[in-house]
Amino acid sequence: MYTFPHRNILDADQFTKMDLDYLIETTNKMKEIYSSNRAFGILRGKLLASLFFEASTRTRLSFESAMERLGGRVISTVGFQFSSISKGETLYDTMKMIEAYADIAVIRHPLEGSSRIAAGAVKMPVINAGDGAGQHPTQALLDLYTIKSEKGKIDDITIGFIGDLKYGRTIHSLIKLLKYYKVHVYLISPEELVLPDSYKKDLAGYPITYEETRDIKVIWDCDVIYVTRIQEERFADHKEYEKLKETYKVNKELILASRKETTILHPLPRVTELSTDLDDLPNAAYFRQAEYGVVSRMTLLCLCLGVNIPN
Amino acid sequence: MYTFPHRNILDADQFTKMDLDYLIETTNKMKEIYSSNRAFGILRGKLLASLFFEASTRTRLSFESAMERLGGRVISTVGFQFSSISKGETLYDTMKMIEAYADIAVIRHPLEGSSRIAAGAVKMPVINAGDGAGQHPTQALLDLYTIKSEKGKIDDITIGFIGDLKYGRTIHSLIKLLKYYKVHVYLISPEELVLPDSYKKDLAGYPITYEETRDIKVIWDCDVIYVTRIQEERFADHKEYEKLKETYKVNKELILASRKETTILHPLPRVTELSTDLDDLPNAAYFRQAEYGVVSRMTLLCLCLGVNIPN
Amino acid sequence: MYTFPHRNILDADQFTKMDLDYLIETTNKMKEIYSSNRAFGILRGKLLASLFFEASTRTRLSFESAMERLGGRVISTVGFQFSSISKGETLYDTMKMIEAYADIAVIRHPLEGSSRIAAGAVKMPVINAGDGAGQHPTQALLDLYTIKSEKGKIDDITIGFIGDLKYGRTIHSLIKLLKYYKVHVYLISPEELVLPDSYKKDLAGYPITYEETRDIKVIWDCDVIYVTRIQEERFADHKEYEKLKETYKVNKELILASRKETTILHPLPRVTELSTDLDDLPNAAYFRQAEYGVVSRMTLLCLCLGVNIPN
Repeated sequence: MYTFPHRNILDADQFTKMDLDYLIETTNKMKEIYSSNRAFGILRGKLLASLFFEASTRTRLSFESAMERLGGRVISTVGFQFSSISKGETLYDTMKMIEAYADIAVIRHPLEGSSRIAAGAVKMPVINAGDGAGQHPTQALLDLYTIKSEKGKIDDITIGFIGDLKYGRTIHSLIKLLKYYKVHVYLISPEELVLPDSYKKDLAGYPITYEETRDIKVIWDCDVIYVTRIQEERFADHKEYEKLKETYKVNKELILASRKETTILHPLPRVTELSTDLDDLPNAAYFRQAEYGVVSRMTLLCLCLGVNIPN
Repeated sequence: MYTFPHRNILDADQFTKMDLDYLIETTNKMKEIYSSNRAFGILRGKLLASLFFEASTRTRLSFESAMERLGGRVISTVGFQFSSISKGETLYDTMKMIEAYADIAVIRHPLEGSSRIAAGAVKMPVINAGDGAGQHPTQALLDLYTIKSEKGKIDDITIGFIGDLKYGRTIHSLIKLLKYYKVHVYLISPEELVLPDSYKKDLAGYPITYEETRDIKVIWDCDVIYVTRIQEERFADHKEYEKLKETYKVNKELILASRKETTILHPLPRVTELSTDLDDLPNAAYFRQAEYGVVSRMTLLCLCLGVNIPN
Repeated sequence: MYTFPHRNILDADQFTKMDLDYLIETTNKMKEIYSSNRAFGILRGKLLASLFFEASTRTRLSFESAMERLGGRVISTVGFQFSSISKGETLYDTMKMIEAYADIAVIRHPLEGSSRIAAGAVKMPVINAGDGAGQHPTQALLDLYTIKSEKGKIDDITIGFIGDLKYGRTIHSLIKLLKYYKVHVYLISPEELVLPDSYKKDLAGYPITYEETRDIKVIWDCDVIYVTRIQEERFADHKEYEKLKETYKVNKELILASRKETTILHPLPRVTELSTDLDDLPNAAYFRQAEYGVVSRMTLLCLCLGVNIPN
């Protein structure tokens, strides 16, 4: 019999196809429990340390909501408040301290690889909520769950990734999960922001197929599009950003020209790449993504803590 | 039969006399429930998003205390921590996200009218905890409840408003509620800080009467005085502030010269306009105001959430 | 029969030997209750105001964890968020407000003596979590409890204090408690950072004995050593800090040269004075100190609130 083998969630690479199937199934169960008001109390007496070494209101509140929805409690700290860090403390020491205070930790950190260091310091479970240019695995898991929930399946669909495929952390993590499925992916980006080769190499030998293009019109062939923001903060050269920031604008006119009912995803926040005139379309799923995120994280908190999810 | 008709608390203007009577009565009931330790659990499983786009420790902690006193939970964020806002996110998008995380939101924002935009974005209830030079309706409601609790009535009393009547948001909101009652109001301020005409016009046709004066001695005729701070942060011209900041100083000598037992209110924080030598007078009610604030906000949280308050 | 006589925890000086014996015994009981998962619920419905006028992540999270572990709730605020203070509010007024919101307050403040002012303003219990160069009594209590737990006794042991004995607040507070016990203390520091005379005078007439030295090798005679960081932030002259900061370095080589099984304590954060190669030694107790801190503070919260700790 299958048992979820992970204590930590650090990297999208850590999951097998079997893990993903189990996570989707368990999140479906969690969603039902939550909808019928039976989730509160499952993590009674458990304490989450919400450690945001850099601010990320969206991700932090999503995790804290997930914990509170389960009846657990949260101790929380954001960025500059880590006074001991400013006194020269290492992440290792900080985590040893936190282990005395909480049962599980969620960590957001500006440095790639830091969540692995954090997890190595302690016996309690650690969840990576984004570490620099590195991984954001829980975002990828919630995105996968969103696609499954919105389309009813993941196999046999066509997905368009649009925007910054070079620096876009959410794309990098999601594609590592999608590779297990029979999906066709369009990688739509300007020349300067194509998906790095290392990510493409990883896809060889898996059911996933992909093609690269500059042409936004391929989205008319897509069941799902995933739009991303060109992230100003990733560019060393501001002129480069100014040149690229408005490369693609997905709006109602473009979407309604398609004969498909294309589900629109976006990790948010958005700037100009995703028009607000889309908001009232039934297939605009980017606000529902936040809801899927909460149940997805509720599931992860329970599984990492080894707490049984009742039927 | 009367049913409280408001899902959102956005503006002191939204209330009828019947609403106010019902709120006072219900807050009395809440106070009794709270005093007999029966409040905890009423909002079990409910989650409040405490969204302070600008810091206001007093108001934030008051709402968070109210929610926790009812057994509900809080996710909280203050100002600069809104990382998504700094990435260019609109308030509309932020609220759509928050709706996935919580059952009700309290919002403090530097921009007038923003709480209405926030409420328009979501289906969950939204409570305005102050938006710029605009409204602060829950402060007005707790002030009204304080007057009722301290004097046993609101009709047939004389109230003196002292200080900055031009920019004083609490005064502006409170007078909109008091207009329904047979009160006489003295508007005591320097020439430069009189109540704007728009507020005075609103009072026509209501039981309230008022007169304007520069002379602080009219407080000897008052059952209640409401002292306000001259707010440095509202003045473009610092010299103007320096000239006006110490216009009125309410102290023990002034108060004890009255033959009335004048109840003293102040929204706090105070600077020099309200002397600390008043603190031990039994009619100094400004610290009790904070207590009335908690039960008043407990009541609002329940009513907006549509949760029944037990007998 | 003995009853714990303190409502506030303000100063290590406030405790008698009988208080300390009772606190150690009660914390042992609390530890057992907590280990057997019976602590959650003891402070159900109680609300802690966690007031950090300066950031101290370690101490704040320790108290908040202690409160949550008991099933109590927390409202929390850090430093610059005290918006009313920036508007000129006094600590007295702030505390009067907080009293309306919570049942007990923990306060950290940059100004010496401020916790006593805070406690004087209110009827609710106040716990000093460090006020400037002043006291940090709960750190001293948890350190005392750590020594007792690690060595099984406090009498008849030799303790070495190492590092900054001049500015080191934790040392100053701990020595006030240790004076009641038959301990011998080595005060190991550079000439510039010796223990101030006032602290030494206080020890006269008590069972404690001490001697001052520059020589780190006396630790080979110690049952317990307490290493402290040279605190950069306490030095007006940066050159002085640079000269002194690496005076002592406690590492594995030094410790293993001793024939005693020396328990190593440190209030953390550490910089270079305590080597990480010690971390895997069984007598390296500085990470366990954080755990003792939580149960120690759980005990204090209950005792100050007058809540019975079940058997």
